[in-house]
Amino acid sequence: MASFIGLGVGPGDPELITLKSIRLLQEADIVTFICNTEGYSQALDIARQALQLLGLTLEEAKLLAIPFRMTRERDEANQAYDHAADKIARYLDEDRSVVFLCEGDPLFFGSFAYLQERLSGRYHCEAVSGISSPQAASAALGVPLALLAENLCVLSGRHNEPELISHFRDFDNAVVLKAGRSRPQILRALKASGRYQDALYIEYATRAEQRIVTDLDKLEPIPGPYFSLFLVSRHKNLVNRKGNS
Amino acid sequence: MASFIGLGVGPGDPELITLKSIRLLQEADIVTFICNTEGYSQALDIARQALQLLGLTLEEAKLLAIPFRMTRERDEANQAYDHAADKIARYLDEDRSVVFLCEGDPLFFGSFAYLQERLSGRYHCEAVSGISSPQAASAALGVPLALLAENLCVLSGRHNEPELISHFRDFDNAVVLKAGRSRPQILRALKASGRYQDALYIEYATRAEQRIVTDLDKLEPIPGPYFSLFLVSRHKNLVNRKGNS
Repeated sequence: MASFIGLGVGPGDPELITLKSIRLLQEADIVTFICNTEGYSQALDIARQALQLLGLTLEEAKLLAIPFRMTRERDEANQAYDHAADKIARYLDEDRSVVFLCEGDPLFFGSFAYLQERLSGRYHCEAVSGISSPQAASAALGVPLALLAENLCVLSGRHNEPELISHFRDFDNAVVLKAGRSRPQILRALKASGRYQDALYIEYATRAEQRIVTDLDKLEPIPGPYFSLFLVSRHKNLVNRKGNS
Repeated sequence: MASFIGLGVGPGDPELITLKSIRLLQEADIVTFICNTEGYSQALDIARQALQLLGLTLEEAKLLAIPFRMTRERDEANQAYDHAADKIARYLDEDRSVVFLCEGDPLFFGSFAYLQERLSGRYHCEAVSGISSPQAASAALGVPLALLAENLCVLSGRHNEPELISHFRDFDNAVVLKAGRSRPQILRALKASGRYQDALYIEYATRAEQRIVTDLDKLEPIPGPYFSLFLVSRHKNLVNRKGNS
């Protein structure tokens, strides 16, 4: 049976891809990915660089770009996923294996699940884990996401302020993803919850443009880039010791 | 400066290691790992198998085993970490680079942070992310950990029942790690929170002895193995469709 596989390529550093994703990239008949209206795909970029590290290349003939305009309109997004699933199904019906490139991990806040939902009734669907952005952020900061007896919550910039405050209070550690637009509100919630001193900020973790702010007084209280996150940690003391960047 | 690097080797499947961990394994002067009193280390086992996939071997002369008896006694654990850190520091003082093998991700519920805490004042410490067990579980089950507008919490079997119930109610998705001893209590909390039908169980994700239970009525309400987890998901409907195991 033809298979549709979501391949995690990791957070940006091409060395953070797994051996399994590398193997499946090479074996796939079709390598598909979402690109923006200019045709650019960060996930494809990472996959190409990872193969390059091993002296390998990605055959152009295998590539299938799926242009996608990011939207918060549910109907528009649903239509776009329907359309993408139809396109992919055509190859699966010809018994060709398709991998779908995903930044980070396909099953962690990714769009793979929307395609899987549409295709898994008819075809074999599978996901190959990749390193996610909270993991990359915690490594870049040198701060654990959680220790043994602790807990952790993963929130996004879409939560309202009272929700953020209550979760910051309840959990030892917290990650707020997609912290771009809601940065001012997240900063207010950190102060109101008493966790402002425990928080760290990072954007574009492991990429060339990576930026770390450990003293939040130095972070402008204005909207920032989409690929940014806050880490609220019981272990901020571990940051910036000797040799930690 | 000599460096101490926590290397994630992933959850068990040797193909789920990153290119970066493979490279650093080969470059390291010393490869250290925690082993049980019989000398066995799961992390070393995974690392060896991963190198084997690439036709490489791990030089025996590089290996430094750190025997460790798992304990909940804080004093005993602290002493063991002090002792391990001293052992590692001796090599770092000779300017030899040391990697420390970690199952999963070094900064996600791992023991690396305890060593880093002791060594990062004097030496360059760093972590290389690995695929964690919730990621492996979600891939094995075919169920996302979280979709875009959702949230996720990661709890452990150490939480009491009221905490579990409240978090199961508050979060779209939840993972309960180290669910072995507290399985009966977790099952009770799932029922009390109304999330019993949303929950899935997996032990030894990606390993040969992997076991999945999607209908919790079929799970014995008795203590189980340490490497077991529950996933509470808004997307259990995705499990067990065509070709998903």
